[in-house]
Amino acid sequence: MPEPSSLLLVLDLVGTFAFGLNGALTAVRAVRVDLVGVLALGMTTALGGGIIRDVLIGSVPPATFSDLTYLGAAAAGALVAFFLSIPLERFTTIIVVFDAVGLSVFCVTGATKALDFGLGPVQAVLLGGITAVGGGTVRDVLIRRVPAVLVSDLYAVPALVGAAIVVAGTYAGFAPLLGVLAASAACFVIRMLGVVFELQVPSALGRRRADDDGDEPGGR
Amino acid sequence: MPEPSSLLLVLDLVGTFAFGLNGALTAVRAVRVDLVGVLALGMTTALGGGIIRDVLIGSVPPATFSDLTYLGAAAAGALVAFFLSIPLERFTTIIVVFDAVGLSVFCVTGATKALDFGLGPVQAVLLGGITAVGGGTVRDVLIRRVPAVLVSDLYAVPALVGAAIVVAGTYAGFAPLLGVLAASAACFVIRMLGVVFELQVPSALGRRRADDDGDEPGGR
Amino acid sequence: MPEPSSLLLVLDLVGTFAFGLNGALTAVRAVRVDLVGVLALGMTTALGGGIIRDVLIGSVPPATFSDLTYLGAAAAGALVAFFLSIPLERFTTIIVVFDAVGLSVFCVTGATKALDFGLGPVQAVLLGGITAVGGGTVRDVLIRRVPAVLVSDLYAVPALVGAAIVVAGTYAGFAPLLGVLAASAACFVIRMLGVVFELQVPSALGRRRADDDGDEPGGR
Repeated sequence: MPEPSSLLLVLDLVGTFAFGLNGALTAVRAVRVDLVGVLALGMTTALGGGIIRDVLIGSVPPATFSDLTYLGAAAAGALVAFFLSIPLERFTTIIVVFDAVGLSVFCVTGATKALDFGLGPVQAVLLGGITAVGGGTVRDVLIRRVPAVLVSDLYAVPALVGAAIVVAGTYAGFAPLLGVLAASAACFVIRMLGVVFELQVPSALGRRRADDDGDEPGGR
Repeated sequence: MPEPSSLLLVLDLVGTFAFGLNGALTAVRAVRVDLVGVLALGMTTALGGGIIRDVLIGSVPPATFSDLTYLGAAAAGALVAFFLSIPLERFTTIIVVFDAVGLSVFCVTGATKALDFGLGPVQAVLLGGITAVGGGTVRDVLIRRVPAVLVSDLYAVPALVGAAIVVAGTYAGFAPLLGVLAASAACFVIRMLGVVFELQVPSALGRRRADDDGDEPGGR
Repeated sequence: MPEPSSLLLVLDLVGTFAFGLNGALTAVRAVRVDLVGVLALGMTTALGGGIIRDVLIGSVPPATFSDLTYLGAAAAGALVAFFLSIPLERFTTIIVVFDAVGLSVFCVTGATKALDFGLGPVQAVLLGGITAVGGGTVRDVLIRRVPAVLVSDLYAVPALVGAAIVVAGTYAGFAPLLGVLAASAACFVIRMLGVVFELQVPSALGRRRADDDGDEPGGR
């Protein structure tokens, strides 16, 4: 397996920490959950997407398990959330930004790794998206929320755009660093624009509003 | 990996389209979900069972990812559901029939592929059943329903019967085409009889009715 | 793949039966579920953790599928639960004890197998824990409970302690049998102490009690 560049590695660890923090905070605020649960949910959020990707492309044991760095970064994020959940309530913006960093990095690393393992371009874009949103989705299932990615504002779309850019850049022969930076930046900007302007993906016609029971995720 | 016969391939694509349509429709009717969500849930329903099977038998990347045809068929079904969810409400019967086609095909292809990968007969029957009901189960979990396969009318049973017939046919040395047709037809007929006569698998004694909160799936 | 010792094998089958029984009973008591559902939920509880472990370490098809013994033990436990769910309501203590046996065995076999497949010590401890609690977690998701391991009394902790002891014993060069027995016994004792004294892992500060809707699992 090719090594990611050191920039990707640093961003990947930042994203892992951010997802661990954000995932654990979301869990703490949604259900009564003990220290083990906070660690489990934070680490699931941070590592779940990459584990799903690695299982699907046949890269097992997942990268997460081959290196304690990722486990440590995810656990550190979850522990910060556990001990500082009250003061962190004032820093919602920072957490959304961190989460967007994680999203931006994971879609790029996910798509890149899928290409490295020989998957086609469309599949690599999908796997980039799955890497970015998979961990949060598993966490939402575990705490009994409809996964935010299915119902809330622009979340999967920026991840898919970022993945598409890095895949297109690879096929076009861009310098890897350039593609990675452009793709991450695009994902980050679209995600933040979506948050600021509360952009929504169109919903299906004929949906049953009667089933809206008010506890769908209001955001991340 | 042996190629499925061209009949199986065609049926498999029909089943994938039908499951994508049916899965997305179920999602649209159960929760507020945007276009990304509809696509994700339709594709999960259509492709999830085969992905689980391929991960379990070690055929990764899953067949779904090796060929854009399946992704396209699943996405097409989901898009039809997204744009035509209101008119489709009048065609419940057709959708149930399509879903039964998907069930009948997936149990046969799942069991056959498991045999091809060297699993024993009992395991192949189980994997046929998992292939047929796995995608819908993951969808139900994502939209917070108790999976229909656990509680509703005959759904897993016809899939297991179909898988058992194709496995038995293979061991008995039947012509593959004959086994496939007999197994698919048996699954389809049992499923449709179950729908028409509202047959139920016996429930456990001592179950707690008090927890029945009325939102279990009333059908597919 | 190295064979487990015959002691481990016997304990593993006892644990599989106990988890199948316990998982199916939990399902019967929580939701209206038919015979297929009871079998599916019991087998998921009994086999899910090991399947997740095997997929993650790349040991596919999972051991569960390579040998009918495990499938049979899990199904037998689920069938006992289905037919005897009313009389078994008087035997809660025995079922908790059986479940603790399963937990103690699975954390040890999970960690041992992870070491056998070349994973590092921390990862092996995690995989031991995942093996022990994974099946019950999947079952809880399927029946729409917040997984007991996240919120309830000491459950993951004894599994992690047991896994840590067997990993430490392996690195320290203990006789395998000694490490296995010490680790299983430690897990079992901690689990039972937790049950008897209702020990809890500390919860996060600032959690939202308003979201406690009273239907989180009250125990196993």
